[in-house]
Amino acid sequence: MNGAQALIRTLVDAGVDTCFTNPGTSEMHFVSALDTVPEMRAILGLFEGVVTGAADGYARMADRPATTLLHLGSGLGNGLANLHNARRARVPVVNIVGDHATYHLPFDAPLTSDIAGIAAGVSTWTRSSATPADVARDAAEAVAASYGPPGRVATLILPADVSWGDGAEPSAPVSAESRKQVSDSTVTEIAKILRSDEKSALLLGGHVLRRAGLSAAGRVGQAAGTALLAETFPARLQRGAGLPAVTRLGYLAEFVEAQLADVRHLILVDAKSPVSFFAYPGKPSGLVPEQCSVHVLAEGADDGVGALEALADALGAGPEGASGPVVPRPDIPTGPLTADSVAAVVGALLPEGAIVSDESNTSSLSLGAMTAGAPVHDWLTLTGGAIGQGMPVATGAAVACPDRPVLSLESDGSAMYTVQSLWTQAREDLDVTTIVYNNRSYAILNLELSRVGAEPGPKAKALFDLSEPPLDFVALGRGMGVPSARVETAEELASQLRLALAEDGPHLIEAVVPSIV
Amino acid sequence: MNGAQALIRTLVDAGVDTCFTNPGTSEMHFVSALDTVPEMRAILGLFEGVVTGAADGYARMADRPATTLLHLGSGLGNGLANLHNARRARVPVVNIVGDHATYHLPFDAPLTSDIAGIAAGVSTWTRSSATPADVARDAAEAVAASYGPPGRVATLILPADVSWGDGAEPSAPVSAESRKQVSDSTVTEIAKILRSDEKSALLLGGHVLRRAGLSAAGRVGQAAGTALLAETFPARLQRGAGLPAVTRLGYLAEFVEAQLADVRHLILVDAKSPVSFFAYPGKPSGLVPEQCSVHVLAEGADDGVGALEALADALGAGPEGASGPVVPRPDIPTGPLTADSVAAVVGALLPEGAIVSDESNTSSLSLGAMTAGAPVHDWLTLTGGAIGQGMPVATGAAVACPDRPVLSLESDGSAMYTVQSLWTQAREDLDVTTIVYNNRSYAILNLELSRVGAEPGPKAKALFDLSEPPLDFVALGRGMGVPSARVETAEELASQLRLALAEDGPHLIEAVVPSIV
Repeated sequence: MNGAQALIRTLVDAGVDTCFTNPGTSEMHFVSALDTVPEMRAILGLFEGVVTGAADGYARMADRPATTLLHLGSGLGNGLANLHNARRARVPVVNIVGDHATYHLPFDAPLTSDIAGIAAGVSTWTRSSATPADVARDAAEAVAASYGPPGRVATLILPADVSWGDGAEPSAPVSAESRKQVSDSTVTEIAKILRSDEKSALLLGGHVLRRAGLSAAGRVGQAAGTALLAETFPARLQRGAGLPAVTRLGYLAEFVEAQLADVRHLILVDAKSPVSFFAYPGKPSGLVPEQCSVHVLAEGADDGVGALEALADALGAGPEGASGPVVPRPDIPTGPLTADSVAAVVGALLPEGAIVSDESNTSSLSLGAMTAGAPVHDWLTLTGGAIGQGMPVATGAAVACPDRPVLSLESDGSAMYTVQSLWTQAREDLDVTTIVYNNRSYAILNLELSRVGAEPGPKAKALFDLSEPPLDFVALGRGMGVPSARVETAEELASQLRLALAEDGPHLIEAVVPSIV
Repeated sequence: MNGAQALIRTLVDAGVDTCFTNPGTSEMHFVSALDTVPEMRAILGLFEGVVTGAADGYARMADRPATTLLHLGSGLGNGLANLHNARRARVPVVNIVGDHATYHLPFDAPLTSDIAGIAAGVSTWTRSSATPADVARDAAEAVAASYGPPGRVATLILPADVSWGDGAEPSAPVSAESRKQVSDSTVTEIAKILRSDEKSALLLGGHVLRRAGLSAAGRVGQAAGTALLAETFPARLQRGAGLPAVTRLGYLAEFVEAQLADVRHLILVDAKSPVSFFAYPGKPSGLVPEQCSVHVLAEGADDGVGALEALADALGAGPEGASGPVVPRPDIPTGPLTADSVAAVVGALLPEGAIVSDESNTSSLSLGAMTAGAPVHDWLTLTGGAIGQGMPVATGAAVACPDRPVLSLESDGSAMYTVQSLWTQAREDLDVTTIVYNNRSYAILNLELSRVGAEPGPKAKALFDLSEPPLDFVALGRGMGVPSARVETAEELASQLRLALAEDGPHLIEAVVPSIV
């Protein structure tokens, strides 16, 4: 058996049965070996940013890694921004990056590149397999490494001669590490703080933003009167009717300041202490007010859910936390579309079990409130800030959860980085409905330009203007095989969204909205 | 004056007056400063691969660098593949990569990344400006460094506080190095070899593939009976009626073997000794036959044109080299399109002074022969092998040469990596005509799969099949504001190409062709 065959068999045996790929010549033996391992599904992307973002979205929903298959350093480079986002999402991803044959590297052929160097910034585990006999064990270790905890990007470089060379055998799965129990003393200490009269808040992130963690946090909140906050950009937040409500920290520092204004104790549970997304002249980078103390309940590899449960028990909490306030679903509005009326339509129609991939940026302001009363759903966000993540993540989430509807909420500017996602959605008949908020601008930059204190002249402003020529997303969607429609009123959006949700397969709705900036 | 203002003024004073950009928040002060320096033109790309590829194409035609303006490590990552190609093209490019404010970096905000680490593989000169007082001098040195020789990618990291901080002053240009004269002894030695009866060939690359170098090489060829070869993927090859004809080495090792079969002395002139693009089981990586000796006339920073002239003089060559054989232009064919009939139409209609950006891959086989008799034109190719280069390079070339028609010959698969180029072409009203060869497959990979000796099963073959859903490039072009048409016969192509060449501004022609594989 050659290296590629042993590698793929090993991946499948370790539970990795989905490969998002954009391969090239150096990956041909891996591609050929796919036919020898029927359990491995191969999904083609036309651009590597789609491939890596899909692996991120898949992992967020499947709780296990997909593998990517990428073409040398240039393919990895094209996928780097979404690997950055995956790293920030702390999800498991296994990259397989093809390389030239080991003996070919000294010849410095045109595509020769420093793959390990390019991977270094995003990949916590990186290895180049030296021989066909090594590759299966390397792959098993890559899968184990990707689980962390927390999840991480693991990159296995696969030289072509290691792929095609004989003498390989599959390797047994390697056990991943488990999360570590938080010490009793930490729990006791935090419980003591929460029992005080001073106002406290839990800042929840990462793996505690699912039902189990939220329920435990809800018990803590009820027992100690503690506010429940979530990190600004969670990888996956379960929410909706019946789940304890948590308030995400705002993107703008001013919002966070207001949210933390009277908090005296901020308890971190798999979340980082809040910092400003960008630096602004004369503004602080850290967003924790001076009078607020920060305490860590769980971080890194800690079992945050268990810690929250122990904390609730220590506080003498009942078995059920406070259910959040019952939030009514919005009525479907009428009239010309705005970002807010899009949010109301989404809030009114979001189906049970939906997965929302949200890269709507400035158009997102009222989305949280409008969807708070919707049936239980998952919300996936722009973890690393590198735009072009939303549509690939939606694609991967739909692969992971074929029975759940996926709603991809996209800004026009962000959509154009990885718009090729639509073709993969059509090819795989994925149940993704994309709503593109087309405000014909990089609205966020218009906002940021004034926030950094810069004086916008006409040349500067022109760089945020996407109106000339206008992007026609209906044409772009149809050009990649996705049924597409443009809407300009709330009624039209509701009608098209109902149609899209009722019908399997991908759809695109271009929502023409004014910029909020 | 703040750092950004001094930086842009310094760039303009050093002859860098074009900025291809996709900026973000950390670049807002640079963007704002654009209005203070009217000479700097800013051109927006919707994706960074367009930005960096355009800077490459610009430099190939302008012989001076453009600057890119990119958003932290993720923006640089998105542009990495085309910077790899620019590095291989040995053209000058100056990247300005915005970063967080220096004091913000320890907070590890979401977009924090190791920019220098990501740049390392493509950038020969990398520096992060430490203070506003440093940035202008750093920029002047970056420009000088980018010139090499040979040309290279220089990357200046611009922290936001260096950009917005006061106390900066413009810096005077720093002189670039000149090319070095090749020693008389080297010229004498090569002349002696060429005077022998053994068959010799010049392998020309880089800067000698323009009129001056080609003319000198033509004199050498006439005096010594030496064959004139060119590297496989030149950054810019001047060719057409009246210029000495050179034969590009083939992409496939088998072709190169045939081309070098009876050559006993291969003389490198700013070209590398030929190597196989990829490794194949049981095939050699180096492509120089055993009986052939390789000699270097000029390399690296050497003045290859001067060396060729000295060599011609040493051989007693006359003032004019042999003009190549007069090649008739093809007639316009009729009937259903094939890659060959597209080539004939292009050969028949290519206008004088055209710039051809060629990423037509498997569809390109007869292009060279069919265009050999066309009026003098420039041919730009896929220097680094990272596909997605052709349309951005065409974009940048059109910016550099507004009075020359640009023909962008694209494969369907390659087009989809940086298809956003079309929007910039429309926005800037660039005179680029794109012909997309749509054979609905990654035809090159079908070819390579059999060449590497892999057995293609149905899963493998499906990964090279782009027919489901079919890509509609007319819709994609129109979706980005480019007038677009589909053609299925040679007559239709000729008609549409005539229209496109007669009319200013961008056009797209989708040429439906069968795959040659």
